[in-house]
Amino acid sequence: MKLKAPLILASHSPRRQQLMRELGLEFTIEISNADESFPAEIAIPEVPTYLARKKALPFKEKLQNEIVITADTIVASNNRILDKPRNKDDARKILGTLSGKSHFAYTGVCLLYHKKCHVVMDRTEVIFKKLSAGEIDYYIQHYMPLDKAGAYGIQEWIGMIGIEKIIGSYFNVVGLPVNKVYGLLQKLNLIEW
Amino acid sequence: MKLKAPLILASHSPRRQQLMRELGLEFTIEISNADESFPAEIAIPEVPTYLARKKALPFKEKLQNEIVITADTIVASNNRILDKPRNKDDARKILGTLSGKSHFAYTGVCLLYHKKCHVVMDRTEVIFKKLSAGEIDYYIQHYMPLDKAGAYGIQEWIGMIGIEKIIGSYFNVVGLPVNKVYGLLQKLNLIEW
Repeated sequence: MKLKAPLILASHSPRRQQLMRELGLEFTIEISNADESFPAEIAIPEVPTYLARKKALPFKEKLQNEIVITADTIVASNNRILDKPRNKDDARKILGTLSGKSHFAYTGVCLLYHKKCHVVMDRTEVIFKKLSAGEIDYYIQHYMPLDKAGAYGIQEWIGMIGIEKIIGSYFNVVGLPVNKVYGLLQKLNLIEW
Repeated sequence: MKLKAPLILASHSPRRQQLMRELGLEFTIEISNADESFPAEIAIPEVPTYLARKKALPFKEKLQNEIVITADTIVASNNRILDKPRNKDDARKILGTLSGKSHFAYTGVCLLYHKKCHVVMDRTEVIFKKLSAGEIDYYIQHYMPLDKAGAYGIQEWIGMIGIEKIIGSYFNVVGLPVNKVYGLLQKLNLIEW
């Protein structure tokens, strides 16, 4: 399986880079530096695709035949977006909010090709058990909550011991709805066997 | 986080070994060679714990203070257990059965400690999109379906492009309900912080 055009993954996230590698596609990494603000009136499920489009914008004029993939993941609980934590205290607070409850992870993707942005989005429900203060502290001290939406990585210790159940795609929570990206590449006839 | 007693993981599966490492526990690997037969009258959800107990049996007499963990994963579709494929043709047939449908993955665990076997089990529903013959062939040629219940690894290519949704624990489908194992270790007061 390979692509008919060079692929650029425009994402800092080591998780997304890992998922694309495991999908077996060759790509290069090029980072765009779009700010991650969005208009307050946008509904939560629209935010990640809005931000994915915004991250793709800087590539729009300079591309020839390349495909660019950008993505954004947000976590929302009780109809409120939980940002990436600013510091360890903030991470503690966010994890306390998620403890013993269900929340949603949304990832939006923009696939830019020939100046057109094709978007996909997926939503996964995630149910955490009641986390003890000790468990939250242990995670914050030994792992990396600070670069992550919702202050947790589902693939890390806290995800392994704390998540009882998800409803939806696992990889979408990691940071990329791989099956939808593959489906889009296929629909656009960009995959060669 | 560490354990109050030495831990032996009695499993061939590289996925289970990987999950235990990511949980952050030290352990050694020792394989038991129990046959994997079970009485026909056992209900499907009982099979993995039955087999996990059976795999733990050879350790029962020779242990001192060690904890032994054994596990078994089965995949069932339409109330019928799908065995590990005997060959590539068999893998093709099994994946054809799973294509476009929902099935269940069950993992049973026995935690043997001081001659007592404590069991946990978890069940995850897995929904595959309709897989094309080309996708099934590509997976069988490039990946390793033969050592896996249901002829697929959720963490491999086919899981990434083919699984639309799961309901339950992801790690349980990989091969170990890590959260339940952790819960059991905690309940037995075997974890030290």
